[in-house]
Amino acid sequence: MTKKVNIVGAGLVGSLLSIYLAKKGYTINIYERRSDMRKISMSAGRSINLALSDRGWRGLEGVGIADEIRKIGIPMYGRFIHHKDGSTAQQPYGKDSQAIYSVSRADINMKLMDLAEQQANVTIHFDERCANIDRKKLKATFEHNITKKITDTSSDLLFGADGAFAASRLNMQLQSDRFEYNQHYIDCGYKELIIPPGKNGEFLMEKNALHIWPRGSFMMIALPNPDGNFTCTLFLPFEGEKSFANLKTNEAIQHFFDTEFSDAVPLMPTLIEDFMTNPVSSLVTVKCFPWVFDEKIALIGDAAHAIVPFYGQGMNCGFEDCVVLNELIDKHQENWEEILKEYESLRKPDADAIADLAIANFVEMRDKTADPKFLLQKKIEAKFAANHPDKWIPLYTMVTYSPHIRYSKALKEGEKQQTIMDKIMARPNIENNWESPDIEAEILQHLAG
Amino acid sequence: MTKKVNIVGAGLVGSLLSIYLAKKGYTINIYERRSDMRKISMSAGRSINLALSDRGWRGLEGVGIADEIRKIGIPMYGRFIHHKDGSTAQQPYGKDSQAIYSVSRADINMKLMDLAEQQANVTIHFDERCANIDRKKLKATFEHNITKKITDTSSDLLFGADGAFAASRLNMQLQSDRFEYNQHYIDCGYKELIIPPGKNGEFLMEKNALHIWPRGSFMMIALPNPDGNFTCTLFLPFEGEKSFANLKTNEAIQHFFDTEFSDAVPLMPTLIEDFMTNPVSSLVTVKCFPWVFDEKIALIGDAAHAIVPFYGQGMNCGFEDCVVLNELIDKHQENWEEILKEYESLRKPDADAIADLAIANFVEMRDKTADPKFLLQKKIEAKFAANHPDKWIPLYTMVTYSPHIRYSKALKEGEKQQTIMDKIMARPNIENNWESPDIEAEILQHLAG
Repeated sequence: MTKKVNIVGAGLVGSLLSIYLAKKGYTINIYERRSDMRKISMSAGRSINLALSDRGWRGLEGVGIADEIRKIGIPMYGRFIHHKDGSTAQQPYGKDSQAIYSVSRADINMKLMDLAEQQANVTIHFDERCANIDRKKLKATFEHNITKKITDTSSDLLFGADGAFAASRLNMQLQSDRFEYNQHYIDCGYKELIIPPGKNGEFLMEKNALHIWPRGSFMMIALPNPDGNFTCTLFLPFEGEKSFANLKTNEAIQHFFDTEFSDAVPLMPTLIEDFMTNPVSSLVTVKCFPWVFDEKIALIGDAAHAIVPFYGQGMNCGFEDCVVLNELIDKHQENWEEILKEYESLRKPDADAIADLAIANFVEMRDKTADPKFLLQKKIEAKFAANHPDKWIPLYTMVTYSPHIRYSKALKEGEKQQTIMDKIMARPNIENNWESPDIEAEILQHLAG
Repeated sequence: MTKKVNIVGAGLVGSLLSIYLAKKGYTINIYERRSDMRKISMSAGRSINLALSDRGWRGLEGVGIADEIRKIGIPMYGRFIHHKDGSTAQQPYGKDSQAIYSVSRADINMKLMDLAEQQANVTIHFDERCANIDRKKLKATFEHNITKKITDTSSDLLFGADGAFAASRLNMQLQSDRFEYNQHYIDCGYKELIIPPGKNGEFLMEKNALHIWPRGSFMMIALPNPDGNFTCTLFLPFEGEKSFANLKTNEAIQHFFDTEFSDAVPLMPTLIEDFMTNPVSSLVTVKCFPWVFDEKIALIGDAAHAIVPFYGQGMNCGFEDCVVLNELIDKHQENWEEILKEYESLRKPDADAIADLAIANFVEMRDKTADPKFLLQKKIEAKFAANHPDKWIPLYTMVTYSPHIRYSKALKEGEKQQTIMDKIMARPNIENNWESPDIEAEILQHLAG
């Protein structure tokens, strides 16, 4: 039986994966490039709060740690839109009880490391940079950041869970013929900002919502944290009229925020300082293939499929990788050749689908959430879905709250729905007659056709 | 004035580039990973003969070495089609005198190295593997393959001309934020085979043609060499019914060739041996951006834009890079910031265009050259172009014989032409009335619209 597993990376997915494998009886060594974040604080000023949704919960429940994580999450029941004129609007994410959960990346990662180390057979080695992976020999080499000591380690299986810029993936790329690889950056970068709590530690905006300031070609969002503050993220083009390139002076920044986010400015006392201090980070999509090499090495999480954050699905998708892998271990009774083959063939189309959905959702968040026509469409869809839950699940609901619907299926269904809704929205006077039974009949007819 | 230039790679483009720069007074050091191919024979059994066409000639003429190269080339005036039933057909490439020239990669590369070394200020260092490029310091580090000696070398400019799998590009990828990168392999691989000369050294097929055995999903081609043989290349899917995966035994190979290439088999006495010995190689397209870093490091040739070989433009495109760069040196009077900026912005869209054209031409070569409807279309186009040379230059002619038309322009014009020809070919009974004046009138009308 395959026993010894090495994992590169103790991030969200590497840590969760180790718990799954430990519970199956494997012995796991994780090698993490960074220092132990539980011992040293190292905010890089570039975090985006994560939104944990049902696929992620399913991953946590599978190893019985959902309750632990729920303690550090804040439910968000909908989008809270801040218009440029100062008016606001709320858009629920689903039915009443349906929420996504704001968690800080550091908090959940630290908790997952704790839980991993509570397993008898999981060891995390910190400060270990992956210097090489010898594919043929299944031997990984790590260099300690401080001591520079070299560690060669062999294993029966190796997982690359080292993120969007994975050293493990690069090693496979350089040692494989016909490796498909694509890294693509969108034209926008992002910068972390903050809305601190009020004097008594209270939230200064609606706590249980994901706040969006949609401005067409750019946007700001804010997600709540347990200590009363909000992590804000400004997504803005690198170049152009309204861009990071044009926000180089205190005056320019102040003017930009006063103009675009007037209701937020009074809540951001350290705006200028934070803006000047925090870096602008870029947003990459990575697609590659294969994910599995020699039936013993596999990429997982962002290392296999980094996506942009606009659907809040990066972590959720990585956790789902673990769920699927766990199911396949049972199905194939630890025949790892079969397990990894099916893992790759199941997950690759789903990862491609959520990558494309995430790109598309940027447009939706920054632009369409402020568009009355789009909101009307969502209202029509919601009404129809409520009357015909067997016939119509809104795309957002499929992706976020329906872990048993594959991403690839959701993407396909979503395209079909959009084709139908394009026809509905083109009907004359739809703004006023959207509740007429005609509309419902037409949708039914399209669905039947 | 910028004086010292390092070039990574003494391949076709690196060698030609060094001659251009030497003639401008620069001092050039080229570092080449391989041994000096002029001293050691090293056929890897994976060459595809090159087809030198007008963009390539222009590059060679620019430094006065076209005549030297012409001595080792064989003009091919058209495609010579070998149908499955043994019948043949000839399809001219352009007007009577228009030809592309078959040259062996090794021959032209060795000649270019000779010519480079004849420049007083060009030195080629062999067996030097690019181990690192420090972008910030503009310092390149090479390791000698045999002595393992490390050489650190700084320069005023650095060119990465080290091919499709460039170490220089990888170094830039790893040291750059927002580096766009895509490598894509087509599903077909290729294998080199040979048709040797006859007993008296004579060519056993038409000498002055590019031979194609088009078979729909695959094809074989053959290009002449000066010593009377033909370099054959079989392009075939890796997997599937007719594929390399299914040609593993002598019997299977013999049966496949007897069935598909019956007229070639008698000319290939070492077929089985060559097939078993020579490797199956893969075919990659690489697109990346930027090509220029810190205004002092630039990628050129395949390192910037590797393409598949089906338009015979890989080398020609790389030589055109050199021509453009040379023009820009004059235009910007050796202001390298400006030179490299414009080089990148001019060449990137052209390289993208020829990459896409090359992929499309695979379908044309393996499939459409045997399709009567396609041949009729080409005949109609040729007739119209002959009557209206100011209004219609066939796509192949633009790409191959019209170096003053940019690839990106050719691609666009070609798409426009195809839209028109789709309409023409859809006319009833076009097979019989294609020479009627109606057709010419309709094309003119579409062009005017």
